[in-house]
Amino acid sequence: MSKKENPTSLIVIFGATGDLAKRKLYPSIYRLYKNGSISENFAVVGVARRPLSNEEFRTNVTNSVTSVANGDGNVEEFSSHFYYHPFDVTSSDSYQQLKELLSTLDTSYTTNGNRIFYLAMAPEFFGTIATSLKAEGLTETEGWKRLVIEKPFGHDLPSAKDLNAEIRQAFHESEIYRIDHYLGKEMVQNIEVIRFANALFEPLWNNRYISNIQITSSETLGVEDRGRYYETSGALRDMVQNHMLQMVALLAMEPPIKLNPEEIRSEKVKVLRAMRKIGPDDVEDYFVRGQYGAGSIHGQSLQGYRDENSVDSNSNTETFVAGKLLIDNFRWAGVPIYIRTGKRMSEKSTKVVVQFKDIPMNLYYNRGEKVDPNLLVINIQPEEGITLHLNAKKSGKDITTTPIRLDYTNNCIDGINTPEAYERLIYDAMRGDMTNFTHWDEVALSWSFIDEISKAWENTRAFDFPNYESGSMGPKQAEELLEKDGFHWWPL
Amino acid sequence: MSKKENPTSLIVIFGATGDLAKRKLYPSIYRLYKNGSISENFAVVGVARRPLSNEEFRTNVTNSVTSVANGDGNVEEFSSHFYYHPFDVTSSDSYQQLKELLSTLDTSYTTNGNRIFYLAMAPEFFGTIATSLKAEGLTETEGWKRLVIEKPFGHDLPSAKDLNAEIRQAFHESEIYRIDHYLGKEMVQNIEVIRFANALFEPLWNNRYISNIQITSSETLGVEDRGRYYETSGALRDMVQNHMLQMVALLAMEPPIKLNPEEIRSEKVKVLRAMRKIGPDDVEDYFVRGQYGAGSIHGQSLQGYRDENSVDSNSNTETFVAGKLLIDNFRWAGVPIYIRTGKRMSEKSTKVVVQFKDIPMNLYYNRGEKVDPNLLVINIQPEEGITLHLNAKKSGKDITTTPIRLDYTNNCIDGINTPEAYERLIYDAMRGDMTNFTHWDEVALSWSFIDEISKAWENTRAFDFPNYESGSMGPKQAEELLEKDGFHWWPL
Repeated sequence: MSKKENPTSLIVIFGATGDLAKRKLYPSIYRLYKNGSISENFAVVGVARRPLSNEEFRTNVTNSVTSVANGDGNVEEFSSHFYYHPFDVTSSDSYQQLKELLSTLDTSYTTNGNRIFYLAMAPEFFGTIATSLKAEGLTETEGWKRLVIEKPFGHDLPSAKDLNAEIRQAFHESEIYRIDHYLGKEMVQNIEVIRFANALFEPLWNNRYISNIQITSSETLGVEDRGRYYETSGALRDMVQNHMLQMVALLAMEPPIKLNPEEIRSEKVKVLRAMRKIGPDDVEDYFVRGQYGAGSIHGQSLQGYRDENSVDSNSNTETFVAGKLLIDNFRWAGVPIYIRTGKRMSEKSTKVVVQFKDIPMNLYYNRGEKVDPNLLVINIQPEEGITLHLNAKKSGKDITTTPIRLDYTNNCIDGINTPEAYERLIYDAMRGDMTNFTHWDEVALSWSFIDEISKAWENTRAFDFPNYESGSMGPKQAEELLEKDGFHWWPL
Repeated sequence: MSKKENPTSLIVIFGATGDLAKRKLYPSIYRLYKNGSISENFAVVGVARRPLSNEEFRTNVTNSVTSVANGDGNVEEFSSHFYYHPFDVTSSDSYQQLKELLSTLDTSYTTNGNRIFYLAMAPEFFGTIATSLKAEGLTETEGWKRLVIEKPFGHDLPSAKDLNAEIRQAFHESEIYRIDHYLGKEMVQNIEVIRFANALFEPLWNNRYISNIQITSSETLGVEDRGRYYETSGALRDMVQNHMLQMVALLAMEPPIKLNPEEIRSEKVKVLRAMRKIGPDDVEDYFVRGQYGAGSIHGQSLQGYRDENSVDSNSNTETFVAGKLLIDNFRWAGVPIYIRTGKRMSEKSTKVVVQFKDIPMNLYYNRGEKVDPNLLVINIQPEEGITLHLNAKKSGKDITTTPIRLDYTNNCIDGINTPEAYERLIYDAMRGDMTNFTHWDEVALSWSFIDEISKAWENTRAFDFPNYESGSMGPKQAEELLEKDGFHWWPL
């Protein structure tokens, strides 16, 4: 793993005409180029089925970065680094032509044989492409080779194992960069810093002082045009298996010996291993599923999930999950971690609320005052920042308490936009920093946890679906999940 | 101790034509009247040497509350509750006439015989007045009687004992309200709430997690027209014996069993008892004295202390004190509490900085980062609020840390001015809440601590006086006091 700070590489993007490439990858590469993070010695080869000329492709790239470029004059120069290769995933010829193109570009851009293969496309071809890259000799290079692979990484543990076995024929684990774009988010990365760079929090970060943790990732969007995929996935696989469990691991892990990828991963894996398994009979006690019905958000009427395109009118697929996780180790025994994620909820927000235990004795009771618990809120998106909810004296002549908020908003301090998650992750992949990618061990443990729940849900119809209105915060069972423990979801 | 919330009482103010009465007491009583904290059943009797008619006195009162009244129409009505009694402190007749006046007013205002005697005047008459009030029968009343007494309460322990013996002839300890106006300040009262109403702080509030505490109370004013008094006092007696040590006690005390005056006082007294005594030979190691020379503040040239009115041109009086206090108990062993107060400093500010210990291991060292310690800053005046200094991730593609501040400013939440210290304290005295007054035990312990230092300083001339410029933060020895422990004063 080199950590060259101005990496040189060829980047081969499979799925070059797709949505992710256009919306995220090209703008992110442009920003890296513009701010000098990557050297001039790079070229991007777009690969997709559609026949396009280099010129047409470059026009597409130019269009997709224009808004980011914001009038800067170097977009044409940037796009000149882009090449297009029309491609049939199963044709040996296609791979051979690509191989030749890469060799040529390697020479002309002096990229030292470094190659990133970025799979930004439908997951059914992940295995085929990876094995063919090896079989056709594209992974034989003088420099390093890396595979960047988008989610979903499998559909369950067996399929993930199969996929992993295929790509591992062509790439070593240390060459596989499994994207979880949540790990690229500024405030997700901040979880580690907040915990380990502040003497104030670490002594309190355990079951003696923390009452429960609540992680919410809510979307206002519905399934949009992804109905076909989503019907085979659902919120549990789409959000919980990866993003939510990754956040749990970062919040709950022990301080690593060093902040390097191996040590951090090793601590995250321990959290996932300590997570209490939910057996088929426990699912109902620990997890709640939901599916949105019709409703309205910001005054706009919206249809229910079952009326969306490519969705079964009788669908059993969940668009909402709430769950209670328990980490059975010394630090966390007895502290529930509640997670909740869903589509078509009242607000778009990703947020962690750490609720501290009540003060041991309320000195203010006699004065008829309820004292709120202290909360540490980590705002991940759309706002980025930290809020601490404390109690102070209420202004006035009596000593009574009032809740106060101490705020830190990321934007106000830096005055500049923080880098996009993808910008960070592409840069990390280019310079060989695997910290914010998911290791196979984590993927396997997550699936083995999730599989029990998805099996239980697939085997029993949710007769109450749809059970929450578009524009609500999910089904009432999600409230009850906390209420039976004496808690409630803190409002976002 | 009644805790009637709309107390009725006669208030007899000795020193009615003085500065304190005009600037603080009348406006505070007016605010209490205006916001309905005290009932209509009250009257104020102003007592002073100068001959004035009731009308003249009421005009003075009206003038002094006009700016507070802010155009409200009830000032005349308010002033009609005020009566003037010209007075000779040593004349029996004077007391007898006052006694009659009080009886009359008691009936006409239905104040149930409740009487507050407020000594807002030169301290030399405190004892005489208190004993005469008893001797002449003014303390024989159907209702309650209370003595409110301004600082200084003595000049050292022996004189304070003498004074106390005198006033205790006339008033029981539970009837004596020793004013320390710092205890009436919103954010000083907030110290208790911040500590005991937040689960976050109490577990950290000890020598395992706190590195040191710094309390600064700086003034930009010089000695002004108080030179004569100040020459006999100095900063140690004027600020440290009362205000600074009271803040130390509030910060360091154990959680009281209840928030009542007795329990809080009992815990404060324990702190004062645990304070390491500074013997004559140790003074130099623990305390620093300073005297301002000429200089400038905000561009204005100012003369040195020795050139002020009524000040000895060779004065040995300190206008600045810095000290290191150690509280030898389980909670605080090894945690220095630094205090600093002075006149003619660069800024007017009263502030407490709690510096937490460094994180046990700096995970960010390898990345070439210095991680700042966490600080809890309690802003007492002029700003009122709390600031927490933490570390977060620096925006960008690398994991490096940056200091951030989480702020809470008192004013922004309430939107109204918090009550003045004196408003609170007068109200507390009227309703019999002694929490924010100083008990004799505290006074005695403070003096016994202070006396050692003032003796040492009186016995040795400070040959380097003046040793700090007006507009600076004090003499360089105050910096060295912390430097030798490896700390530094956090900038205000």
